[in-house]
Amino acid sequence: MRIGAIEAGGTKFICGIGDESGRIEDQISFPTRHPDLTMPQVIDYFQDKGAEAIGIGSFGPIDIRLDSPTYGYVTTTPKPGWANYDLLGTLKQVFSVPFGWDTDVNAAVYGEVKWGAAQGLSNCLYITVGTGIGVGVYAEGRLVHGLVHPEGGHVLTRRHPEDDFSGVCPYHGDCLEGMAAGPAIEARWGKKGHELPAEHKAWEMEAFYIAQSITQAILLLSPHKIILGGGVMQQPQLYPLIREAVRQNLNGYVSSSTIQNHMDEYITAPGLGQQAGLCGALALGLTAMSNQISTI
Amino acid sequence: MRIGAIEAGGTKFICGIGDESGRIEDQISFPTRHPDLTMPQVIDYFQDKGAEAIGIGSFGPIDIRLDSPTYGYVTTTPKPGWANYDLLGTLKQVFSVPFGWDTDVNAAVYGEVKWGAAQGLSNCLYITVGTGIGVGVYAEGRLVHGLVHPEGGHVLTRRHPEDDFSGVCPYHGDCLEGMAAGPAIEARWGKKGHELPAEHKAWEMEAFYIAQSITQAILLLSPHKIILGGGVMQQPQLYPLIREAVRQNLNGYVSSSTIQNHMDEYITAPGLGQQAGLCGALALGLTAMSNQISTI
Repeated sequence: MRIGAIEAGGTKFICGIGDESGRIEDQISFPTRHPDLTMPQVIDYFQDKGAEAIGIGSFGPIDIRLDSPTYGYVTTTPKPGWANYDLLGTLKQVFSVPFGWDTDVNAAVYGEVKWGAAQGLSNCLYITVGTGIGVGVYAEGRLVHGLVHPEGGHVLTRRHPEDDFSGVCPYHGDCLEGMAAGPAIEARWGKKGHELPAEHKAWEMEAFYIAQSITQAILLLSPHKIILGGGVMQQPQLYPLIREAVRQNLNGYVSSSTIQNHMDEYITAPGLGQQAGLCGALALGLTAMSNQISTI
Repeated sequence: MRIGAIEAGGTKFICGIGDESGRIEDQISFPTRHPDLTMPQVIDYFQDKGAEAIGIGSFGPIDIRLDSPTYGYVTTTPKPGWANYDLLGTLKQVFSVPFGWDTDVNAAVYGEVKWGAAQGLSNCLYITVGTGIGVGVYAEGRLVHGLVHPEGGHVLTRRHPEDDFSGVCPYHGDCLEGMAAGPAIEARWGKKGHELPAEHKAWEMEAFYIAQSITQAILLLSPHKIILGGGVMQQPQLYPLIREAVRQNLNGYVSSSTIQNHMDEYITAPGLGQQAGLCGALALGLTAMSNQISTI
């Protein structure tokens, strides 16, 4: 099988072609500009690839309600040209194959469940911490969509006692994204995260906020595993800080040996590394093809 | 069909018998004492009822992992006699019928989805605010269990600016349950909730905390509806206060007309009223019977 995969990010697009084992045979990446410039590049890439299905994990918010007239659209983004843009429809006009369509973070969690660190688990969370913060939710064997789709990057936070930073989220100020995404780190400390040393106070504070959202997610969703990806999570010192803060937050309440004795495996990096999103898009494409076959 | 239903609460047990339409034909209630006293009452009730299946929604934490040696047990409760008690097994020894087994709040959300305010919806949350706070989660057409089961009553809270109460949760102090369950209201104001007038400051504060947990749940789970039950929610003035606080918390971020224009229907009381838990247990029994038939 040849399956196309698109990781449509707010900063860059990655397109690839792979097979049913999750192996990516070829991939290309280019910056996300206006759709009139970016989408022809996507179409051009797949023109000669012979994809039998294509999966897309997209930045958002996006419309994933199957019965909606704007299904397949990017909806309210401030990114020029992409608000109310029919991303899926534009590709469907060119390629007559089954399409999978979901958020970038749902794609990533799906990739991890299929071929990564959460293989075989029925409940898993993927949190990406980068320019923004997003949460993909897989519960009882299904990707969670619901009313719109989860927007867990914006959960409210308790303030760190030594933090007087007001937050940068235009909607909520000091929600998780406003306090802990890359731009918040830069605004608070005057330097980008990768310019700060590993022992800088910034990381304990960063862990404090990320651990809070993980705590809330454990209490509301009881996942089997929590996977942390994204640019900010390239700082390996964050993992032990986050695990310790989650342990303190829960304070022994959730009676599970996984949480109490195997926190190192419970909160982890993506098994697929930087490829979680693209492999997840591949998995979405694969599922779209299976669904079509099963309904013929 | 005749289906048995047990709402096993920490304060009282309710047993009933009903049919596949959700109609409860007969029910009985008694206080929850030591299991040696309470369980014989349960068994006695069902002795002559001819139940073809029995569903149980239980207080917890409970073990609902099918592959666990302690499946069917109440696990870590401080309630005398109930810690590590094989509630389900005790009944299975007497009644040779299919059993449904889940948390009290998962039963309630299931009842509401089947016959109540969330009929036909694939994603719904049930929050009960009473002696404790519990959250039942129904996502993409399935009850969410995961690693243990959701324990959303213990999500962390931001403190109300005028609240210096330290909270009563023995694990977390000022988590949601520690700040907003019945005992917290009584400890903070020196009176039980039902003794406080509707215009008392207590209710705005109560709404502040409940709305926070709803906000977190909307962002992490994107439910189609949120149903609020339990003793504290018998105060009707809470609903508009909670809706307004949720609206302020989200600040227009979640782009959904359901949330932006129909908040009165989005955050509601149980359609089944006080019967949500018992009807939900009935629904669990019904599903257990269907599953058995489908696997024969």
